Amino acid sequence: MEATDLASAGRLPKSYVVRTELERILAELAEGDPVPSERDLAVRFAVARETVRQALRDLLVEGRIRRQGRGTVVSRPKLVQPLSLRSYTQNALSYGLLPGRILVGWDDVPADADTARDLEVPVGTPVMHLERVLLADGERIGLESTFLRLDRFGVLRDTYDPTTSLYAAMAALGAVLGHATERIETVLASPREAALLECTTALPLLLLHRRSIDQHGHPVERVRSLYRGDRIAFEAMLTRDTLPRS
Amino acid sequence: MEATDLASAGRLPKSYVVRTELERILAELAEGDPVPSERDLAVRFAVARETVRQALRDLLVEGRIRRQGRGTVVSRPKLVQPLSLRSYTQNALSYGLLPGRILVGWDDVPADADTARDLEVPVGTPVMHLERVLLADGERIGLESTFLRLDRFGVLRDTYDPTTSLYAAMAALGAVLGHATERIETVLASPREAALLECTTALPLLLLHRRSIDQHGHPVERVRSLYRGDRIAFEAMLTRDTLPRS
Repeated sequence: MEATDLASAGRLPKSYVVRTELERILAELAEGDPVPSERDLAVRFAVARETVRQALRDLLVEGRIRRQGRGTVVSRPKLVQPLSLRSYTQNALSYGLLPGRILVGWDDVPADADTARDLEVPVGTPVMHLERVLLADGERIGLESTFLRLDRFGVLRDTYDPTTSLYAAMAALGAVLGHATERIETVLASPREAALLECTTALPLLLLHRRSIDQHGHPVERVRSLYRGDRIAFEAMLTRDTLPRS
Repeated sequence: MEATDLASAGRLPKSYVVRTELERILAELAEGDPVPSERDLAVRFAVARETVRQALRDLLVEGRIRRQGRGTVVSRPKLVQPLSLRSYTQNALSYGLLPGRILVGWDDVPADADTARDLEVPVGTPVMHLERVLLADGERIGLESTFLRLDRFGVLRDTYDPTTSLYAAMAALGAVLGHATERIETVLASPREAALLECTTALPLLLLHRRSIDQHGHPVERVRSLYRGDRIAFEAMLTRDTLPRS
């Protein structure tokens, strides 16, 4: 049994050791409790303040702590959202959170190659583009771009309130989701996305691309969603039925 | 229909505009082609070199480009791995990639609270911990920590070659996976993880926690996997059957 040099060397950076100690301290605290100051922690661990600062920055990115006023407090746990065909609205409500949306933009745009492929229209065909910030209990947690075919959903322009559930409005038009493919990646926020999500460009985000198909096998939507990695996690239930055919 | 100030202002940072232009250039290039130099791009877009540098850094984090020697080249596409009960080995092979593993550590450790809950043993019970770097065609793409009960899998210490598929070895012991829960988050690499994955601590990683249950409803494993966000994406197939009961 051979181990790599890196692991057997066993010398961890001080910031990592400080971080482990900090996690022990956080485990003792409740949500909203103040985190000890950088200065106090540096004294307690006998390290440079910069070392403490780096450990705190890591915990901030992971959503374990958050800024509040001039101090730092322990965060509430991440929202865990099942990967499912359910709408964001249904999921949030099932977690006891108040869902909300802020409209960022609602335009017709020419379909690019990916959108054209997903919606089965020629490249350049005008499609509806709806961009919204997703809220949970008033907190900005996601940014969602939905692309829809105008021939099927153009009527939404006259009937739909974009601060309400889109899936409910689509269902009212007879579009029942049959299945969807969801691709999950991680990226850093662009400056525009960071501004809309009220985070920094150093925060890792979860990027989801969804293509949904209705009960008749017709494409329903292409969705690009970005979620704050410090505020949300996704959960999948894997069964033998979900094994890909190979 | 009200839009936020941010979106309607429409003034995007220069780095973002440069990035969009760069993506257009990359779309014309093939894998392994050299990316034009920072200096050339700065001249072409009439912006400061720092602006170009930031756009290139973003593309590096997302895996669109990679360093090669002293230059930068277009990356090969990300590995897309289905979220399924299949082993890493089976998935890699089905994508035409040669799977490999480097053993980092193999010890008995006392179960912490999470591991004890997942494996259904008292806290502090010794469990087997196997840590391996996952390779695809020789490239380090993931770091996997597996926790197993000793009463069931202790025999692996004498029989198992840790550079081969663990699921195959577990199946040989009669453990057939029935279902699993997988939680997906994003974090930045710690210094140790960055060293093992040969990346920087600014790279977002996908963090997966899996708990697998066998055909008889008994816990099989707890797995913590970290994947390089610039090299891998996950894909889920969602059907009406995967809707959570609510």
